Amino acid sequence: MLDIKVLNQEVLKETLEMKDVILAVEKAYILKAQNRTELFPMVFHEFNPGVADMDIKSGHLKDESIFGLKLVSWFGENKEKNLPLLFGTTLIFDDKTGMPLALLNADYITGMRTGAAGAIGAKYLAKKNSKSLLMVGTGHVAQFEILATLIAVPSIEKVRVYNPRSEERTATYASKIKNILKNSFNFESDVEFEAVRDIKDAVSNSDIIITATPSREPMILKDWVKPGTHFSCVGSDMEGKQEIDENIFLDAKVVVDDITQAVNVGETETAIKKNIIKESDLLGEMGEIILGNIKGRTSDNDITIFDSTGIALQDLITSKLALDLAEKKNLGISIKL
Amino acid sequence: MLDIKVLNQEVLKETLEMKDVILAVEKAYILKAQNRTELFPMVFHEFNPGVADMDIKSGHLKDESIFGLKLVSWFGENKEKNLPLLFGTTLIFDDKTGMPLALLNADYITGMRTGAAGAIGAKYLAKKNSKSLLMVGTGHVAQFEILATLIAVPSIEKVRVYNPRSEERTATYASKIKNILKNSFNFESDVEFEAVRDIKDAVSNSDIIITATPSREPMILKDWVKPGTHFSCVGSDMEGKQEIDENIFLDAKVVVDDITQAVNVGETETAIKKNIIKESDLLGEMGEIILGNIKGRTSDNDITIFDSTGIALQDLITSKLALDLAEKKNLGISIKL
Repeated sequence: MLDIKVLNQEVLKETLEMKDVILAVEKAYILKAQNRTELFPMVFHEFNPGVADMDIKSGHLKDESIFGLKLVSWFGENKEKNLPLLFGTTLIFDDKTGMPLALLNADYITGMRTGAAGAIGAKYLAKKNSKSLLMVGTGHVAQFEILATLIAVPSIEKVRVYNPRSEERTATYASKIKNILKNSFNFESDVEFEAVRDIKDAVSNSDIIITATPSREPMILKDWVKPGTHFSCVGSDMEGKQEIDENIFLDAKVVVDDITQAVNVGETETAIKKNIIKESDLLGEMGEIILGNIKGRTSDNDITIFDSTGIALQDLITSKLALDLAEKKNLGISIKL
Repeated sequence: MLDIKVLNQEVLKETLEMKDVILAVEKAYILKAQNRTELFPMVFHEFNPGVADMDIKSGHLKDESIFGLKLVSWFGENKEKNLPLLFGTTLIFDDKTGMPLALLNADYITGMRTGAAGAIGAKYLAKKNSKSLLMVGTGHVAQFEILATLIAVPSIEKVRVYNPRSEERTATYASKIKNILKNSFNFESDVEFEAVRDIKDAVSNSDIIITATPSREPMILKDWVKPGTHFSCVGSDMEGKQEIDENIFLDAKVVVDDITQAVNVGETETAIKKNIIKESDLLGEMGEIILGNIKGRTSDNDITIFDSTGIALQDLITSKLALDLAEKKNLGISIKL
């Protein structure tokens, strides 16, 4: 019988640190740009449109000698059942033998790698010395975006938070995010946290804007955006989702994680469908920017967008990182399969 | 944290009996015919064509309230490493909450459900009182095909076995299959087992022929086939694979497990590509035959073919059966994920 490793949520929280996950996700982007990875076609199924769906993302990370998959299910009605809306499960396999190596809870990994992605967008595309971050969305992912961006862009002094649906939730989140970062991630900083009252004003006064919502219509209009702003859009990951005004794309420098996914299911989808931009207007993928093969921002007045749709390679590399660290720390269990 | 159930190879061998798996797979075919299932698109990737590949089959079984996936990897060079060539891993999820329920070793399940499929083809399409079975292929799957067919078609008196590549392996397999059935499955019968020396002669004298090989060219020619023969072709599951002469399709009644898969990757693929038959010449899917909505064989002279490509629903229903039985027998372990 086979032995496979199981890393549960608790072990993953003990194992993964955001600074390492940021480097791992950067490496995944770089390996993709160097054609040392494969993304397999995504499987997507809606059990009930807008209410319950699942997707399977899979791929091959040659340098790490693994391939694998992550199944994520999203069941909106779980809220009433007091259950998490999202479940993620990952399987990792050895690419020399095809043998299953590990089962991982992917909930925490998804948060970490999604946070890292938004932050990498800001690190490589935002203005030097960006001082202010606007976080749009106060769901589960927001804490990971804020944590990662504060680590990747240490010049930030102010974080504004905004829940587009509820003034009350905006205020609550602003009052508790400092403690979340401290208690969940052991992260402390002097940064100032503020609840957004006037979103138009907040957009006009932020250097970096991260959007992480399930929105299907633009929450940020072009007129509000000042020159020099950077957007990391991480919420759009299926057809029909949209977070920012598609007209912002017209004058922006746009970088994506994966061109195919961005054009089909990302924030870029609407801008292309409405002929605001063409696929050839995209600067390229993030790995090329990190490698310096493509120039991103060239002036403090550029508006930049990173469209992060989320790719299997982020999950695979973060899972591998967790497996290696768990091995070192002797965490996780082995089971006979 | 989540609790999920793990059923390993050992537990599955203690839990699953072929007679139950046959009924379960029949039920999966019926539910598919009644539109109470969903098959999600298959993911297929070749790491090295003909040497190493993997596929992910997934779907939704509404009546059992589960959805899930199976990843199967096939690494031909494992032979030299003394490792199994095939590894299968299944994840099952609750379709009301999206929560992961179970991790199963899918190696044994794959053998059982594939054996059941070939046997169901024979049960519903072969002549009444079929006396002889020819098993083409002596790999891992052959024992499951023989076991299942002896259970589903109890009139069989003689089983011929044939390895198309090696006379020696044909002889070895014929001499040990009775013991395999006894030792691995506790199955005993008076049936006679015989090694094939002349394949042409064996084909002409068999009522039921099951092919389960990785062949890419026909091993059985049309001229050898007598009226009344039934074929269950279970080996072809990807583009380019073929086991029997495509001309056999011309006068045969053809039933498939899934029309899309059969036409694209099954035994049916070549017959259609070479314009021997059209998709509309297929009688339909097996569930329609079992339900009696479509007539299969109508005369003892008909030649019938069941093209079993293997569908996720077989795996899901067999996994669910194993989970229910393990629950009853208090087998398997629970882990915190």
